Amino acid sequence: MYQNMGSRYLEQGTNKNDSLLIYLPEQLSPVMIRVGINGYGTIGRRVADAVSRQKDMEVSGVIKTKPDYVAMTASSKFKIFVPDRESIKKFQDKSLDVQGDLDDLVSASDIIIDCTPEGQGEKNIQIYRKHKKKAIFQGGESSSLAEVSFNAYANYDSASGKEYVRVVSCNTTGLARTLSTLRDHFGVSEASATLIRRATDPNDSKKGPINALEPDLHFPSHHGPDVMTVMDGISIETSAVKAPTTLMHLHSVTVKIKSETDLEHVLRAFESRRRLMIVSGKNGITSTAQVMDLARELGRERSDLYEIAIWRENVNLNGRKINYMQAVHQESDVVPENVDAVRAVFGLQEKEKSIELTDMALGIKEKVY
Amino acid sequence: MYQNMGSRYLEQGTNKNDSLLIYLPEQLSPVMIRVGINGYGTIGRRVADAVSRQKDMEVSGVIKTKPDYVAMTASSKFKIFVPDRESIKKFQDKSLDVQGDLDDLVSASDIIIDCTPEGQGEKNIQIYRKHKKKAIFQGGESSSLAEVSFNAYANYDSASGKEYVRVVSCNTTGLARTLSTLRDHFGVSEASATLIRRATDPNDSKKGPINALEPDLHFPSHHGPDVMTVMDGISIETSAVKAPTTLMHLHSVTVKIKSETDLEHVLRAFESRRRLMIVSGKNGITSTAQVMDLARELGRERSDLYEIAIWRENVNLNGRKINYMQAVHQESDVVPENVDAVRAVFGLQEKEKSIELTDMALGIKEKVY
Repeated sequence: MYQNMGSRYLEQGTNKNDSLLIYLPEQLSPVMIRVGINGYGTIGRRVADAVSRQKDMEVSGVIKTKPDYVAMTASSKFKIFVPDRESIKKFQDKSLDVQGDLDDLVSASDIIIDCTPEGQGEKNIQIYRKHKKKAIFQGGESSSLAEVSFNAYANYDSASGKEYVRVVSCNTTGLARTLSTLRDHFGVSEASATLIRRATDPNDSKKGPINALEPDLHFPSHHGPDVMTVMDGISIETSAVKAPTTLMHLHSVTVKIKSETDLEHVLRAFESRRRLMIVSGKNGITSTAQVMDLARELGRERSDLYEIAIWRENVNLNGRKINYMQAVHQESDVVPENVDAVRAVFGLQEKEKSIELTDMALGIKEKVY
Repeated sequence: MYQNMGSRYLEQGTNKNDSLLIYLPEQLSPVMIRVGINGYGTIGRRVADAVSRQKDMEVSGVIKTKPDYVAMTASSKFKIFVPDRESIKKFQDKSLDVQGDLDDLVSASDIIIDCTPEGQGEKNIQIYRKHKKKAIFQGGESSSLAEVSFNAYANYDSASGKEYVRVVSCNTTGLARTLSTLRDHFGVSEASATLIRRATDPNDSKKGPINALEPDLHFPSHHGPDVMTVMDGISIETSAVKAPTTLMHLHSVTVKIKSETDLEHVLRAFESRRRLMIVSGKNGITSTAQVMDLARELGRERSDLYEIAIWRENVNLNGRKINYMQAVHQESDVVPENVDAVRAVFGLQEKEKSIELTDMALGIKEKVY
């Protein structure tokens, strides 16, 4: 249906460094952005699948460092590249085809989504610069690496035409989604949150804590300041604790809003955003175990939950103070944001339209459970 | 493609109690068996989806007891029935359509797969008897409830023409799959196993142990005798321990075989069966965490793993003694067996053909990781 022609036209017809955006005439093929995924871990593999579901993007390839079971499953879906020429042999030894190295992938892409472990972005950005290619980084990188930090609800437009954008982390994304919703409806003067974080991801069997609660020995934890990178003018402080679970993070949030309202309007504000989901103990959802089980019943890819789940029973309004609890699926909530960031930097779609396209492709619907 | 006509013909043209099987002339529509699912918990919901993927079966409806989030997701896929008329109102209060009660579902079905909590089968079988309908029970029921206990590899043919069949439990299924493979290739004289069992399923947040190892205070545990219900003439004793994990069971197995062989042939025997999967630490699979992650990467429904995973490194042969370790996904390994049991009791397909049809529909392929 779509052809590669569009993206090649875009590449040849524009200088990527001057943020000039060329819109193709309607009679030509629609733009098809070639997205390279550097890093195929927890986030990278999900972003790759999400990008491949969009009609205006295609995955030009993924960088995989180890020829493990994840590489074996990736090879049936995507072109595999490796970080450097030296890695090719170990893939070939396991009968895995390799298309080239990072330089080759960057050359073959219009934009790179960098999903490498935190701290690697600083090294990788040199390569993207050399090839004059845009890049999107993850929240593990320092906010100073990119021109702007990004959350689709909170500050989509600020990424327009930028070269380097950073999608904030899973926890920050969760906070930014609900806080920006309250800001847009009622104004927010200040906020605070305690983050009970999952110890590690479900595919890991090494990291702990395995049987203790581990306070983050910094106050505020880095999450509060990170929210402020995507929400100008909000004051927020956070505390964090690690708990022995792999399923989700859970946030206990307090927000002071600027205008008077009632509880019904607060709930309706949350319900109005597709990437938030209201859940209830009355429907059997009393812990993160059932929230993640719901994702399985919804038939989501990898049983992921892109939405932030807010318990109806915990939303409380007292004067201008709102309390609520929300659960964050750390493996997947940033996935739709990465897709939107691609559209934002190329100016392909307005905010609401991009969010809608992403949500429809990923099966995110307005729904209350 | 297929029409309901076949199953109606089957129902009208045969007396279900005399085990007489009528095969339709080829020029008529293929048989379409109407399968009712009584109970939509961990097993029932998976069996319902698996049945709906088969070309020779359709789901006539599912019995749901509570109008919770699982009922909400089920209602977009299946006709919902309730155990009794009194339950209808609480579903209607949540805007969930109800088609009738258990009697109605049994009437509208050619066979019932009973996935109710253990011990309920004894009560339910009266209803199936009254309607002269066949039924398949799960491993939680006493083996005396059904005419035969069932595992597709171990004793498919013994279910032919039966009215009441019991699919053995997840642990017994795991043991029966590998032990029957060794029996068919080398003969088995005796076996023993230690079962390290998961504490509870991932969607549960109540049951423990949460931070202890809990020995089963019976020797042998019930699993050994249960294996013998599907494998005549094998002697096996088992011990069981509950561990604080939700992902999978893990079995440490010792088997004495009857004929001489070498390690390569043992591995090849395991590899030859699609419902067994060889995994390796060399490909990054060092615990049940990575085994279940593999299921996510394979894109399986609900991220389930129907196969029993055997670690290549742990398969050891010493004279005629084989040791191995295997992981069992307790939520889903019995699902393909339930599908095969339907074909077995109606005599719809020979053993190998039924297993192949089931596996293809569920995406189970020969593969080594």
